[in-house]
Amino acid sequence: MKLGGMLIRDASEGDWAAIWPFMREIAAAGETFSWDRDIDEARARQRWFPAPPGRTVVAVDDDGKVVGTAVSGPNHEGPASHVATASFMVAPGYAGRGAGRALGRHVLDQAKADGFRAMQFNAVVETNTRAVALWRSLGMEIAATLPEAFNHPQHGYVGLHVMYQRF
Amino acid sequence: MKLGGMLIRDASEGDWAAIWPFMREIAAAGETFSWDRDIDEARARQRWFPAPPGRTVVAVDDDGKVVGTAVSGPNHEGPASHVATASFMVAPGYAGRGAGRALGRHVLDQAKADGFRAMQFNAVVETNTRAVALWRSLGMEIAATLPEAFNHPQHGYVGLHVMYQRF
Repeated sequence: MKLGGMLIRDASEGDWAAIWPFMREIAAAGETFSWDRDIDEARARQRWFPAPPGRTVVAVDDDGKVVGTAVSGPNHEGPASHVATASFMVAPGYAGRGAGRALGRHVLDQAKADGFRAMQFNAVVETNTRAVALWRSLGMEIAATLPEAFNHPQHGYVGLHVMYQRF
Repeated sequence: MKLGGMLIRDASEGDWAAIWPFMREIAAAGETFSWDRDIDEARARQRWFPAPPGRTVVAVDDDGKVVGTAVSGPNHEGPASHVATASFMVAPGYAGRGAGRALGRHVLDQAKADGFRAMQFNAVVETNTRAVALWRSLGMEIAATLPEAFNHPQHGYVGLHVMYQRF
């Protein structure tokens, strides 16, 4: 699917070599992800390629370069398995070129097509204002801001948004 | 620690035989837990006995019977690892005898002692009004109610509360 100048396609194992460098950089920065900043490659890979019904996609630019990725699936199990969740990463050098928006639209459309009834983002750092604005533009709403739930390397303790959208 | 007529102590592997029957019953009922209703024993056990810093405790009545249990640990990693989370189960036949309150007080006190700065419950079913009232009496606040996030076998789609307390 071509969205916003970016091709979004299912990720293959062969994409990992392109994903891991920017994933490691984003985790190490500690500004947007609630992950160990020094997460090791095996653990990151396992997390980003969950078993079905988990889905992993990549955003590919016009030159065929993987510049972003998303993982999605059920947020809980059983009686709450109809609510999806997702995480997104865009290579820092490629911010602002539409990869995040294309990934977000794709993941939301796919979740609807898969029969989920809602999407929940569990931990959006409130100082990540570009992401917050993007998700809001795609229909996600801030359901709560959990105060001081994230320790930002520059801003100190800041809030984490729980964002939610019913389909 | 003796709280509310209940002894709360660290769980041992030997407690599993007492825990699993009521855990299976609670999961199968599908009224309060966002788990597969037919979760298998190995998976439940693995989930309830996480690696450190995860903690598992049991509530023991005056006759030495295990009537409840709780598991707690960090809700996220890295820059968000200072927020704890916890889950609780009390054997259905022992509701209203103080086990839930004793477990809740213990887990909150332990999280403070361990240096966590807040406690977050991710998915409290809004129709589980006894639990909601109990957690509120222990200082937890409803940060958000995610609409229709839980499919209750009697009530249909009901909300899930995200509850939060800063220490």
